[in-house]
Amino acid sequence: MKTRIITAVVALIFFIPFVVYGGIPFELLSILLATIALYEVLVMTKQRIFSMNGIITLLLMWLVVVPDRYLDFLDTLHITEMEVIFILMALLLANTVFSRNKFHFDQVGICMVAAFYTGFGFHYLALTREAGLMYVLFALFIVWSTDTGAYFIGKAIGKHKLAPNVSPNKTVEGFIGGIVCALVIAGGFYYFAELPGNIAFVLALLVFLSIFGQLGDLVESALKRFYGVKDSGKILPGHGGILDRFDSLLFVLPLLHILQII
Amino acid sequence: MKTRIITAVVALIFFIPFVVYGGIPFELLSILLATIALYEVLVMTKQRIFSMNGIITLLLMWLVVVPDRYLDFLDTLHITEMEVIFILMALLLANTVFSRNKFHFDQVGICMVAAFYTGFGFHYLALTREAGLMYVLFALFIVWSTDTGAYFIGKAIGKHKLAPNVSPNKTVEGFIGGIVCALVIAGGFYYFAELPGNIAFVLALLVFLSIFGQLGDLVESALKRFYGVKDSGKILPGHGGILDRFDSLLFVLPLLHILQII
Repeated sequence: MKTRIITAVVALIFFIPFVVYGGIPFELLSILLATIALYEVLVMTKQRIFSMNGIITLLLMWLVVVPDRYLDFLDTLHITEMEVIFILMALLLANTVFSRNKFHFDQVGICMVAAFYTGFGFHYLALTREAGLMYVLFALFIVWSTDTGAYFIGKAIGKHKLAPNVSPNKTVEGFIGGIVCALVIAGGFYYFAELPGNIAFVLALLVFLSIFGQLGDLVESALKRFYGVKDSGKILPGHGGILDRFDSLLFVLPLLHILQII
Repeated sequence: MKTRIITAVVALIFFIPFVVYGGIPFELLSILLATIALYEVLVMTKQRIFSMNGIITLLLMWLVVVPDRYLDFLDTLHITEMEVIFILMALLLANTVFSRNKFHFDQVGICMVAAFYTGFGFHYLALTREAGLMYVLFALFIVWSTDTGAYFIGKAIGKHKLAPNVSPNKTVEGFIGGIVCALVIAGGFYYFAELPGNIAFVLALLVFLSIFGQLGDLVESALKRFYGVKDSGKILPGHGGILDRFDSLLFVLPLLHILQII
């Protein structure tokens, strides 16, 4: 517990100035976090990082994660983002030939989903900050209040397993408790931060995002369970890896944009 | 051999009117061919077609394959193509939780690469026809002359194996023979069709595209060998599946556009 707290404090001291300052430093931090998260997925899925495939996967993830204006140079080259995705995929596929049966079609797939999974979430982290500090805080409040509510209410009254094959400690009671807690805490934040939207909409939104935050958490649990690892990494002692800390946000942040909240 | 010839004649009688006519019928044919090719990949990789994952993969492929103007409605919804890709990927990832350990992260990857691999190639088939009938014929000439040259020259003087782990019958001599044959036949076509570009550029282009055509063929061989199947499908008796017939084009057509030839 002591390690957990120290890590949390150190991480926050490091993280908060970037969040508050925003701009290019926060964009670069997002890209760095995405890079570590991708590294964690590649290690988990037993892909070699320092290989042609690892590098191509990294390039694919960077293509997805960077703010769109970083890709303006593609316009002058008369090439679209989708075309670059094709080129990188074709290079991965070509490696199934060049590697002499060591790198296969299914690994091309793992590299692609690893790049997209980590790239998208952190892309929207930077984009959310650009829209305003309040929105980042709102997303963090949703995730933290959901996590906290699920943990304590699940511990207190949890009886029915939520997803025993994926995350055996989670309960239906905790799941609902997470939503209720998000409604109270993140709802309160939304109100006091004077973000736009009428009450009915905001409540529906909070339920939706709290569910998707928990789903993001479960997806990462399924990933870890399938590859037989406990934590995605060791960079945050007591908290696991970057992916362990950002799993819910990876689903919540893109949805905030897709739902036109931001 | 008789079956092969009958199939080829029937397929050409079916295919040629669409190619010559172009327009929406050819776009729809491209989408149909891509759908069959995706079906073949999903069967090969033991994914269930008539399942939530199969349907999401199909939607992902359609998103990639359709001409861009079909996606204009996304603009009115204020949503980008990349965001739709995220939603579909998130649904696949969510299924790793809902499926109770029957559908895994690596299968999400297989679904994604299957959708992109088949989607891109046929997207550019329709786009190439839109640019002009001559360009489609040029691409076909490159692929057919490369295949034919590689087959006969490999058979006549082939000694050194090209990629024994992937496609044991191919030889280095055949590979070079394919390029030479493409230079002569597709080069002749390019000259007489009066397509633009100076001779040095066209020759370099032909070598490049002939190599990538053969690479596309080898990638599909690696895919089939890894999953232990001989043909991608049975729709074309004596010729295998749609993917078997279009494997080289899947690489050549996007490159024609990326290289700004079209």
